Parts: sequence; C-alpha cells; structure tokens
Amino acid sequence: MNNDHHLDVTFLGGLGEVGKNMLVLASGDDMIVIDAGVGFPEEDMFGVDLLLPDITYLRQNADRVRGIFITHGHEDHIGALAYLLEAVNAPVYSTRLTQGLLRNRLRERKMLDRADLRLIVPEEDPRITAGCFTVECFRVSHSIPDAVGFAIETPVGLVVHTGDFKFDQTPVDGRLTDMAKLGELGRREPLLLISDCVHVESPGTTPSERVVEQTFDDVMRRASGRVIVATFASNISRVQQVLTTAHRHGRRVACVGRSLQNNVRVALELGYLTPPPDTLIRVAQAAKLPPEQVVYVCTGSQGEPMAVLSRIARGDHKEIRIQPGDTVVISATPIPGNESSVYRLINQLFKQGAEVIYAAHAPVHVSGHASQDELRMMLNLVRPRFVLPFHGEPRHLYLYADLARSVGIPDERIMIGEVGTVFRFDGETAEIVGSVPSGTVYVDGLSVGEAGDKTIVDRRLLARDGVLLIVVTIDRESGQVVAGPEIVGRGFLPDGVGTAFLTAARDHLSQVLGQNGHTSHGRLAATRAIHETVQSFVYQQTRRRPVILPVVLEV
Amino acid sequence: MNNDHHLDVTFLGGLGEVGKNMLVLASGDDMIVIDAGVGFPEEDMFGVDLLLPDITYLRQNADRVRGIFITHGHEDHIGALAYLLEAVNAPVYSTRLTQGLLRNRLRERKMLDRADLRLIVPEEDPRITAGCFTVECFRVSHSIPDAVGFAIETPVGLVVHTGDFKFDQTPVDGRLTDMAKLGELGRREPLLLISDCVHVESPGTTPSERVVEQTFDDVMRRASGRVIVATFASNISRVQQVLTTAHRHGRRVACVGRSLQNNVRVALELGYLTPPPDTLIRVAQAAKLPPEQVVYVCTGSQGEPMAVLSRIARGDHKEIRIQPGDTVVISATPIPGNESSVYRLINQLFKQGAEVIYAAHAPVHVSGHASQDELRMMLNLVRPRFVLPFHGEPRHLYLYADLARSVGIPDERIMIGEVGTVFRFDGETAEIVGSVPSGTVYVDGLSVGEAGDKTIVDRRLLARDGVLLIVVTIDRESGQVVAGPEIVGRGFLPDGVGTAFLTAARDHLSQVLGQNGHTSHGRLAATRAIHETVQSFVYQQTRRRPVILPVVLEV
Repeated sequence: MNNDHHLDVTFLGGLGEVGKNMLVLASGDDMIVIDAGVGFPEEDMFGVDLLLPDITYLRQNADRVRGIFITHGHEDHIGALAYLLEAVNAPVYSTRLTQGLLRNRLRERKMLDRADLRLIVPEEDPRITAGCFTVECFRVSHSIPDAVGFAIETPVGLVVHTGDFKFDQTPVDGRLTDMAKLGELGRREPLLLISDCVHVESPGTTPSERVVEQTFDDVMRRASGRVIVATFASNISRVQQVLTTAHRHGRRVACVGRSLQNNVRVALELGYLTPPPDTLIRVAQAAKLPPEQVVYVCTGSQGEPMAVLSRIARGDHKEIRIQPGDTVVISATPIPGNESSVYRLINQLFKQGAEVIYAAHAPVHVSGHASQDELRMMLNLVRPRFVLPFHGEPRHLYLYADLARSVGIPDERIMIGEVGTVFRFDGETAEIVGSVPSGTVYVDGLSVGEAGDKTIVDRRLLARDGVLLIVVTIDRESGQVVAGPEIVGRGFLPDGVGTAFLTAARDHLSQVLGQNGHTSHGRLAATRAIHETVQSFVYQQTRRRPVILPVVLEV
Repeated sequence: MNNDHHLDVTFLGGLGEVGKNMLVLASGDDMIVIDAGVGFPEEDMFGVDLLLPDITYLRQNADRVRGIFITHGHEDHIGALAYLLEAVNAPVYSTRLTQGLLRNRLRERKMLDRADLRLIVPEEDPRITAGCFTVECFRVSHSIPDAVGFAIETPVGLVVHTGDFKFDQTPVDGRLTDMAKLGELGRREPLLLISDCVHVESPGTTPSERVVEQTFDDVMRRASGRVIVATFASNISRVQQVLTTAHRHGRRVACVGRSLQNNVRVALELGYLTPPPDTLIRVAQAAKLPPEQVVYVCTGSQGEPMAVLSRIARGDHKEIRIQPGDTVVISATPIPGNESSVYRLINQLFKQGAEVIYAAHAPVHVSGHASQDELRMMLNLVRPRFVLPFHGEPRHLYLYADLARSVGIPDERIMIGEVGTVFRFDGETAEIVGSVPSGTVYVDGLSVGEAGDKTIVDRRLLARDGVLLIVVTIDRESGQVVAGPEIVGRGFLPDGVGTAFLTAARDHLSQVLGQNGHTSHGRLAATRAIHETVQSFVYQQTRRRPVILPVVLEV
C-alpha cells in the first residue's frame, strides 16, 4: 500500500461528542496531531473525574508524529497534553497565551521539562514544516484570547481546521477572526474544511462578548453591596470585562480560587489581561473595603461541589460568606447535564439572601462558538471540496450537514463519522476506510485508565438498588454451615423495614441451606446456591434487584 | 387558642420545589385540600420511581377535611390522590376532563369505588360549601384543557388560587382564562393571592399553544415520509393540534403507548378531543398506509428509557422502527435534569437516519405557564393584600418577589416559605407561625415510604466509589482468625488491577489482624478494627472512599 498519495484524517476525541479534542492527520510516514484535550464525565459515569482520549493509535505510531498543534488554551484542547507527551515525543506549537496556560498544566503533571514548546505568532504568517505537512495558522475569535485555526498543506491538498471560533466583530481583546486569511485560503481551492459545529442549533449570529459587559455595568451600578461573578477559570476575556466595568464603578476586584488565580497570573505576565490601575487586589485586601467597592471573581459556575461558589453557597468558604446586599452573577450557561447542580446552587444562594443574576433571566453569558450564519460564512469563505464537522454530538453533526447542503455542498462531500473513523482523501475522492483503536480512558482518583466500563456498570447497579452481602462459614469436610448466614444491606431497604426483611431472608436462606447441606459441597456450589436463593427471594418480595455478593468461608 | 379567627395556609408539596402539589387551608375545625400530585425524582435519588408528599399532617387531622379540590389533570396535581384518599375521606371536586383523567388513576390503584367524585362546571359559577369555606372556581388556560383556579371565601377573607395558568389569547380549546371573573374577585378586596410562579424567569408573555401548530404544519408539509410526534401523555391540546394538522396534509394519526391511549380515550369520550373524520386510526392500520400518510403520536419526550420513543430510538419497539425519510418531532422541552437523556435520545434518532426536530432549534413547544407580564397582569387584576408564590423552586419564589415589588406589593406582604411552613392570616396581618410534619415519601418499586434519606445517601456513596466487603471468621474463644480475611469489591477497581490491589489489601489486613489477634476479642472490636485498617489502606493507596462492609463470623 502506498501511503504517499493519500491523507488519513482521524479524530481520537471530539467527533460525535463534545470534549477531549484530538485530531490526527497522517500521510506517508508522517503524522501531526491537533489539540490534546480532556473530557468531562456524564452524570451516570459514577465516580469518574475526567475523560481522556484513548491514544493507542498514536502509541503504535509514536515515531511518525512530527508535531502537535494546539488551537487554544481551553481544557478540552490542552488538558490531555501531559498524557500524550508520555507516549509521543514531538514539538508542541501554540500561541503565546496558550503556551502560558499549557505550561501550568505540564508543570502540575511534572512534564514541563520533557516538552519541546514552540511559539507561533499568527502576525508573522509562519509556515511550519512537519514531515510532509506545512502548517499555517490564522487568528479566530473565541471565548479565550489568542485562539487560532490551522491551514495544513498536505500531499493531496489543503486542509483548513477552524479551531473553536465565532466571528465576533467586537471581541474583548480586539483581535478578529482573520477573514482576509480565510479568503486567501479559499482562493487556494482547499480540499477539506474541518469546522467547529457545536452551536449549529442557533440561528443567526452569536452575540459579541461585549453584550455581557453591559449586564456587568447594570449590575455593578445597581448593586448596593458586593458583587460576586462566577465564570470558567479559563475565561480571561470575562475577567478583563469585570476589571474594566468594576473600575468604572469605583470597585476593586479580587480573584478567588487557585485555578483562576493561576490563569490570571499567566495572562497578566504575558500581557493578555490589562487591569486598570489599582483595580486588581488580593482577597485579604477586599475583606477590608466597604461592600459597595468590592467585586469577587471566582469559579464554580457549573455547580461543581468543590469550587469556590458552591462552597460560598453552602456557607463553608473560609473567606467569603453571603451577606445581605450581595449580588451573585453566574456568568455561564449550564453545560448539558449540569442543570440540576447549577439550579441547586442558585437556590442555595437565594436562600442565603443573595440576589442572583443568571442565564435563564439575564444576558450574562454568550457562547464562544459560531451560530448558523457564521458557520455558513466560514463555508462561503473557504469554499472547500469536502467538509467535516467536528466538536459536536451526532445531533450537531447532522444539523451541520443540513446547513452545509443549504450553501450548496453536495451530500457525498459532507463527512460524518465518530471517534476512530478513518476518513481517507486522495485529492479527488473521500471515503471511510475503517477505524483505529479509540475510545475513552477514565481518570478516577489517582488512577488513569484503570476503571473500565464494567466498573461504571457496577456502580450504576449499586446506585439503583444497593447491595446485599451474604456471608456463611462452612465446614470444609462436611459442607455443613458452621457460622452464619449473615446478611448485611446498604442502599437497599432502610433500617426500619430493612432489618425485619433481612431477618426473613436469612431464615429463608438458612432453611434452604439446611435442606441442601449434603449436596452443596464446596465453596463454589454453596456460593452459587446462596446467590440464586437470595436473589429470587428478594425479587419476589420487593421486585428489586440489588447487587448480591455471597461470600463463603471454609474452616 | 381560638382558631375561628385565623386561617392557616400550608403547602405539603409544591412550595420551594416543582412537583407533588398539595395545599391545605385550615380554619377553626375545617380544612380543605387543593391538589394531590406526585413529584419526579432528581437524578441523584437513585432507584426512586416517584415522590409523594408526606401527608402526616392530614392523617392527624383526617376528620377535619371537608373537601379536596383539583385544579387540573396533570400528574403533579392528581397523581397522589389515591394515596391521599387512603388517609382522608372527603369529596373530590373537579371539572369534567380532570375527573375523567383522575378516574383512570384511581381505577389503576383500585380506589375508584371509595372515591366520592363531584363535578364542577365553571360556567355555572358554583359555590361549594366545605365547612367554613365557600369555594368558587374560574377557568384558566394551561397546557391541558379544563383547568381552573379557585376563589375561597374564608372566615378572614377571600383567597384566590391561580392553579397553573397563562393568559393564552388563542387557546387550542377556545377557553380563555376568565379575566372578567378575576376582575370581579379583585373588586372583592382579596386577602391573599396564591400564584403559579414557575415561568417567572421569562420576560414578556408566553406564546400561545397555536405557535406549535405552525411548526407541525411546516413539518408535515415538508416531510417525505412518516412523522412521529412525541409529547406528554396528558397533553391533550397537543394531540388535538396534531390531528387537525395531519388532516390538512392528508395524513392519519395513530397514538402509541398505553398511558397516551388511555388519556386520549377519556378525552374522546368526554368531547375534549375532536378528531377530523377518519383521521384517528389504530397502530396496525397505520402500518399498512404509505409513509407520507402516517403520523404517530407517542410518549417519551423526556428520554424516559421505557417510553415508546426511547424504544423506537434503540430499535426495540415491536411495531415501529425508524426508516429513511422519517421525521421525529420532540414536542417538549427537557425538564431540568433530563437534558442528558433527551440529547442521548436525539443523537440515537439522528444516527438511525431520522430527521429530528426539537426545542433547541425549532418552536415545537411552548410553556403552559405565565411569563412575567402575565404574572403582573394577574397581580393587577386580583389586587390582593398578600401574595404567596407557589409552584416554584426557591429561585422562582425570590424572582417572583422582585416582580411583585415591581407592581407595588410591599415586601412585608410577600410570603416566601417552603413545604410545611404554616402561614397564618387574621385578616389584617400575616406571619409564619411554625411548620407541620412534611417532606417526601419515596416510591421505590413496590414499596411506598420505605426507602428513606439514608438509603438514598448510601446509594450515592455506592455509586461514587463502589463497595468493598471484608469477611473474617474468628474463633469465639481465642479471637484468632480461623478463616479469611476475604475481600470482595464491586464498582471499585476493575478486575485487572483490582485483583492485585485486593490481594495487597488482604495481606495488609491479615498482618494487622495477626498482630492484634490478642486484643481484638469479640466481633464488634474485630469489625471496627477491620473497617479502620481497610479504609485507611484504601484511601492511602487510591484516594478513594468506597463503602466498606466488614462482616465477622464466630465459630
């Protein structure tokens, strides 16, 4: 098979799902990777803290990887870089702020020394050679400064990757999506556009980040006491807007929480955050000012139980307690799946006496992603032969396909797939030629990749009906029961009725074991008999199926 | 204490929460109850099927209850009636459709014979005497026909209860909220308005149910194949709109699923559903028609795993499978907490090849509840001395308080409370005088009220980190270990690493038990020692806290 005359495009994460973005382009002996992000668990992935892409495919081809290109500094694009660099040794290209943020992450994981970090400056219109690929970049506006997309010249044609983008005409950092560069790329007859599609459900154009500033302005003017703004730790633009607005209303701003403080420090050092004079202060200083002069910025906008805002709402944050006159602004929308936690948080804050301003009733957040008209504009600028929507669940991919058809892309040039799918391009045609090993690696406490699907399924079963544990000691020789059975339940029935029920179950089991004492020689047989007896008794009596764990000891 | 000159208003459900609506008005020796609904579990109430209000307060006062008044036929207003009637014997007043729907529910629970059901016809302007209370009613528009609010003349003044309402000016059933009656009530200087507030986050006016019909019209015109509409089983108005639109496009309609078919049957019998001629057909008939002449209506708009639409999406519905050209309309918005299930369902349907139309990108649903301008209109019509928002989480109650202040209700006349709070009115003043027994009764499989908070908390712990079970048999006399320890885990670590880890834990425990063999006489001491040893070992090694269940047997 001669690989030189085709290009394989494979997502290891971020296709048919939102999160853990990672894309591999392969041609001949060369590969490049775009982004290395983490994902966040769904609510029924019990006990799982983070998701990583399965990088088996890259491990198997580690010597072919010529470069890793990072679009921007959000966790779902940089969070898995340390993990990737344990398997793959290649230079990492990113813009200045992105590099500052990923340095933080690599330092935490003790991987900074091993990383070959290289800076790209879009204004210098760099052309980076990585094996048979030549990579250019262009600025895009997003909800974090210094975001880019990439244009990759491959042996079979030009590939344009949008990164996460919108066409904000008044971005907070003044840096627009580079429409001129996109237009120029469009004139080069690109083979493929790989486009962000996560906001395809929204008609029209995504509002500018500036909209939020007007809300901040209103709130800070009206609030008689302190203002507490919660946002994502990475939302540097939002922090800049708080600083600007606070200064206008004679308020000073303290950032609370380690992850936010780290990001703010990096952004300050690199000049991506420019606080008005005397505006940014420490938490300890804020405590000494009159309430109407104070703004706090903190994390916890998704109701994460350990984040600053949740601790404030529960009344167990050591420095900040809600007091009458406080206004809390939740400057984010709930990520699907987080709604219950977010509304619980809002309810708690109201009950503590705060005024709460949140997305359901005020414009406190805008998306960082392109709406329908912007997605169409990108297609019309780049005019690709093929299009491949990424950064979306299946619903987003299929709606994007409708949208692409609406600007004249024929059906057979719209590529829909999932994680692991290998899309092969030869410059003329495109086809799906199979898939590579792929999936999700769970990070669970200190363990990476140990908890598997079975663990998660077990936790779901335990969650539904609890667990019953039956213990018996039998005589090795005679098979007679010499101690027990004991039955213990957790999460099954509560103490009152539970105790009586478990006694009945135990009596029933004793009787069965007594009758079959002769036949159930050996631990295995006894274990199986106990399992069946208890399971059918419990189901008959309660119509529930707790996890049943029989243990037989021999003496 | 003379009870005759005051009124106690107490919610047993539906205040500071959405669902399980139940309100008690008490004065002197008399009580009336308004609504008796179920609630739906939050996602971390593992294994719980339904929530009921705790009715201890009504059990203790069963002989004082003079009547039960039902506002409309939704589950969160009628679902707990059978349960209530087991404790309280009083006539149940409702409109015709509501009575038809609650008859179904009572029949299922074998309580129909014991219920004294009485009809109210708003057009007759009835005045029902129930002890010292005189109850009138007025029509309101909502997302189900035949909904009403109540006006109750009490010994200390007039109380107006809105029920669930909006001011739809073009309702599907042509029956408007009775603004004239509300105006007349307003002239009688009401003491108290008890107002629905759940949609207070939305500015302006809730769109009319008619809006949805335009979307249905569009979809049925464009769709080349079958159309499948999912909605709530109780949404009779939505079914009427599907029937009307289908007829216009030469399509026929089959209802799928038992709960929907039951409700449709009742509505047909009572004349609340008027299908155009030859439009309503059976599922078996629909299977024989060409796809472009078929519409199915089904349940499952919330992604409930056992509902019709989820079974269709998974490909295991026995009569309906997705085929190319199918369009699925999810005519509902996800209830907070259901987003993940709903989006999972939508993704499955797209992957099966259906076109999916849903709330995030098309107007396929409108709320049945009043938005801000309508809530203000209600306040301005009724002009109450006091106002008590209900049918809302704390965030809704507090935002409603802001809204009430905006139309001139002073702060001290806006009553905010929670389930169980006793609001006492004497005609002049109002105060909170304490609370009555109240809370949530869990329905869990066949058991009602057995699963308690501890059970749910245990299930949460099991779900997070799984369970470890440690079994040892000791000699009763010497305290020496004679069998075990055995350690078994579920949902903790998976087989690969888990086995090795559990062996290490067992060795560690054996060693500790061996050292302390002399001191840990007795089961209790041994149990405690095992718990502590294993817990600290596990936490040290993994930073996780599985549920640890030690069992010690003696021989």
